[in-house]
Amino acid sequence: MNVSEYFVDFLIEKGVTDVFGIPGGVILDLIYEFNKRTEIKAHLSYHEQAAAFEACGYSQCDYKLGVAYATRGPGFTNMITGIAEAFSESLPILFVTSHSGKIVGHSMRFEKEQEVDTASMVRHITKYAVAIDSIEEVVEEINKAYIIAMEGRKGPVLLDFSADLWNQKLNDHETENEVIIRKFKNDVLNEVIKDITKYLLNSQRPIILVGDGVRQAGATEMLKVFADDINVPVLSSRCSQDVGAQCNNYYGYIGSHGIRYSNFIFAKADLVIAIGNRLAFPITSKSFIKALANKRVLRIDVDSNELSRNIPNSVKYEIDAKVVLEELINKPITVMNHSQWIEVCNKLKFELKMFDLNLAIKNINCILNKVKSCQSICCDVGNNEFWVSRSYVESKIQNRIIYSKSFGALGCSIAKAIGAYYFTKKPVVCFIGDQGFQLNVQELQLIAQNQLPIYIIVLNNNSSGMIRSREKTRYGECYVHTTCQSGYSVPDIMGLAQAYGIQYCEYMNINEDIVTFFGEKTPLIVEVKLGEEIDLEPNLPAGNDCENMSPEIPYLLYKELDKL
Amino acid sequence: MNVSEYFVDFLIEKGVTDVFGIPGGVILDLIYEFNKRTEIKAHLSYHEQAAAFEACGYSQCDYKLGVAYATRGPGFTNMITGIAEAFSESLPILFVTSHSGKIVGHSMRFEKEQEVDTASMVRHITKYAVAIDSIEEVVEEINKAYIIAMEGRKGPVLLDFSADLWNQKLNDHETENEVIIRKFKNDVLNEVIKDITKYLLNSQRPIILVGDGVRQAGATEMLKVFADDINVPVLSSRCSQDVGAQCNNYYGYIGSHGIRYSNFIFAKADLVIAIGNRLAFPITSKSFIKALANKRVLRIDVDSNELSRNIPNSVKYEIDAKVVLEELINKPITVMNHSQWIEVCNKLKFELKMFDLNLAIKNINCILNKVKSCQSICCDVGNNEFWVSRSYVESKIQNRIIYSKSFGALGCSIAKAIGAYYFTKKPVVCFIGDQGFQLNVQELQLIAQNQLPIYIIVLNNNSSGMIRSREKTRYGECYVHTTCQSGYSVPDIMGLAQAYGIQYCEYMNINEDIVTFFGEKTPLIVEVKLGEEIDLEPNLPAGNDCENMSPEIPYLLYKELDKL
Repeated sequence: MNVSEYFVDFLIEKGVTDVFGIPGGVILDLIYEFNKRTEIKAHLSYHEQAAAFEACGYSQCDYKLGVAYATRGPGFTNMITGIAEAFSESLPILFVTSHSGKIVGHSMRFEKEQEVDTASMVRHITKYAVAIDSIEEVVEEINKAYIIAMEGRKGPVLLDFSADLWNQKLNDHETENEVIIRKFKNDVLNEVIKDITKYLLNSQRPIILVGDGVRQAGATEMLKVFADDINVPVLSSRCSQDVGAQCNNYYGYIGSHGIRYSNFIFAKADLVIAIGNRLAFPITSKSFIKALANKRVLRIDVDSNELSRNIPNSVKYEIDAKVVLEELINKPITVMNHSQWIEVCNKLKFELKMFDLNLAIKNINCILNKVKSCQSICCDVGNNEFWVSRSYVESKIQNRIIYSKSFGALGCSIAKAIGAYYFTKKPVVCFIGDQGFQLNVQELQLIAQNQLPIYIIVLNNNSSGMIRSREKTRYGECYVHTTCQSGYSVPDIMGLAQAYGIQYCEYMNINEDIVTFFGEKTPLIVEVKLGEEIDLEPNLPAGNDCENMSPEIPYLLYKELDKL
Repeated sequence: MNVSEYFVDFLIEKGVTDVFGIPGGVILDLIYEFNKRTEIKAHLSYHEQAAAFEACGYSQCDYKLGVAYATRGPGFTNMITGIAEAFSESLPILFVTSHSGKIVGHSMRFEKEQEVDTASMVRHITKYAVAIDSIEEVVEEINKAYIIAMEGRKGPVLLDFSADLWNQKLNDHETENEVIIRKFKNDVLNEVIKDITKYLLNSQRPIILVGDGVRQAGATEMLKVFADDINVPVLSSRCSQDVGAQCNNYYGYIGSHGIRYSNFIFAKADLVIAIGNRLAFPITSKSFIKALANKRVLRIDVDSNELSRNIPNSVKYEIDAKVVLEELINKPITVMNHSQWIEVCNKLKFELKMFDLNLAIKNINCILNKVKSCQSICCDVGNNEFWVSRSYVESKIQNRIIYSKSFGALGCSIAKAIGAYYFTKKPVVCFIGDQGFQLNVQELQLIAQNQLPIYIIVLNNNSSGMIRSREKTRYGECYVHTTCQSGYSVPDIMGLAQAYGIQYCEYMNINEDIVTFFGEKTPLIVEVKLGEEIDLEPNLPAGNDCENMSPEIPYLLYKELDKL
């Protein structure tokens, strides 16, 4: 058995069904090996950046192992934005490249044609990065890569194989290496269960604050069972709204662009059980630091580094969310009746939910309600993702929704939708703005060529909307390169659709029925034309109480709700 | 004076006229400052990768200072392929980004939203990379960056400014820092002149082998004066053919895909005066190592690290090419009459130049002869660049021709053509293959929006030709993802041209007259449809004598020429 056979066997055994990349001289042996198999399929991307994002989309559906490959030099560097995205999103992806010459020093500028020192470049945006140069290392490094990618808080690994290894033979005994994912430390389990029980008994207004760590731990359903059982309101971070949406008592997401009633509920809570939520926001938001002063926070997180963030009144538990939730379900705890608190939450929601619905959000809401059959929704970066988040809460759907959460990689969603399609083999909806649409437009060729049922909704406001909003707020409507009057422009989207051979329709307004299009199993581009003046609202002015968002609601209503 | 004012003043003072990037929150202050000035113009790109390539194209015209900027996180990582390209091409470019939080450790995955440790990621693909966090460092670091980028062998620098610095005031006395580019060590000058004189007097068959270092040193015209004066044949590396082409006795470029008669001439030479040529090829080519055994090599290079390559029979001089050529022109040396040797070279050229001209090369030749008015020609990566190189030698034009030499960044040429246009303000011709065309197709929007006179020649063979050739040679016509039968495809190029609003024409054959199109001062896409079966020929099978290329020429002719 040679290295490429072993590696492809390994990936198949781990359940990988689809991989993404572009051929290049040093990785042809690997691509040929993929091509021989029926259990796994290699897909040709049209930019290595997109190949990396495609692996992200594939993995992000359910935090399963993903794979992207690229040739050396520019092939590898083109993947870097996607590697950073995978690190930021905790995606267990093997990024594979190959080199034909080992870099031994850095004195010469390009000692070997095209070769760069791959591992050092991505050291801080991977969990592990290694160049493999001898046959003895191969089995150990592949297994090590898998373990590191999958264990604890997941994340990407870079494997850079010497090109002459692909065809080298491995010893039979070496290939029988067994992979064991280490168990998490469980010594804090008793403690966390005891504390949750104790604090819940003493709390009048508890909330569960979920983060994407719940899904990463594979504990989404357990969360629903637990939360529904104890009848406590559930809030989430914006990008884990699909985790929260499974629960009966879900009240949206908090944040500086959060749902107004969610921020209200958060402000009134006296206990926060944070599960798989890194609580990144209070570090930079005075509003949330203020809101935390009057409550106790229990923080369940698998990543000790994230727990090192300094949150007032908090207790930290370095433990896997799944372990905790499993225990809570198996041995139900005693809790108080919180129906009065639920009533307060319902009142806040009822009074506030009609605010903040602009035309973009209403349109998206109509679309979301028509694509329930799509297993996954991919969002790009910018105003579009915030509008979709808000619509999602209103629509009450529960589909998986995939974001670029903290890295914010503009233009990633078309490629992520491709990856998500290959993971789910179900239609995918992709929301994207007009600027992001341009960045990886070349991947329309992959979609068209393979006739993938991906519905791309281009929210076209003819501007770089999010930067424009910042210019408006901070610099007084001084726009440069963000609007059509200041040097930005958008190509003819219908023309592009035609050039790529993809069906196109313009979405005129919320009354139009485009459900027929969505029924088809072929690609579709829907252009939603919006005025550039639609801003990202509401938002939380720095230092405001977190329930006091801008634009303000009527003073008397605010006072009434404040007193609840 | 604040930091953004100082920095923009600095760039204007250094002669920078055009910069490239996309706005983002942390760099708005800088973009506003660019926008206030008339001496410098910021151009909106549609992908930061392209912005980086655009700065490369701008700089590469004449190795002048270039600038690209991007926002933090994905904006920065999107530039990385372009940064590596600039390093590989020795381009003095300031890559500018900004951060809103200083990275102090690497324990937490994304300590600050979007922030990555920029400097560590590009340390080995820049001459210098620094994050600037205090106002005291600003003036020194900007000046240091410029000196480092420009001195000796040029190259890129990364400046990552803390976002809160842009508006901070500098002390007046700080801003009066004077920039002095250090002079090169000249103590070897006497030695190199003495040696060139001595070896030339004893040589029957000398050649001058130029590299791009001659242009980088700003010594192209001096080379011509010197070479024409001493009447010695000039050869070049493929990618410095435009330097060689200035000389009366230019006989093409050598290499494994070199011009057949150039390799013949190289084989017969007894003295090689290598100027600004790093002689990278003999390291990997047995053929050229063999060819060097019978000759003396004098190596004039400004980069001591490149001189560390081990070349047989060589003498090394770490010195700037311009300093040497200036001296040789000012104090002409005594040389033998080499007319007999020139006759041999002419005979080789005459007998061999009709070989190796396929349809692609003939077509390109026709096009090149019609675009002499374009100051610059940009080539992409792949078969297209080799065909253009070969056509260029036959066409006898002398235009600046810009390649991605050793990094081989597929898809860079459209963006480089944009940069080259802004540097020269003259029409630019851009050659690109059908795969490279797809990678940065989004930049057609910049071209269309600004109606730049860029003529894009798409050599469409419906395949990833270079990788396909390798598959054919090494794996016996086993194609995967490189031909239309094996999963690769090309969108409708005419349709894309229409969607972007760019004039399109199909180039049918070498007799067609498309000169009228080239006369216009608007963008144009010319599609040259080629059969996918056109391979990259001739090439030099490993270990062959360097004049014995494949496909072979008639045996009797080979024998006759071998004896000359």
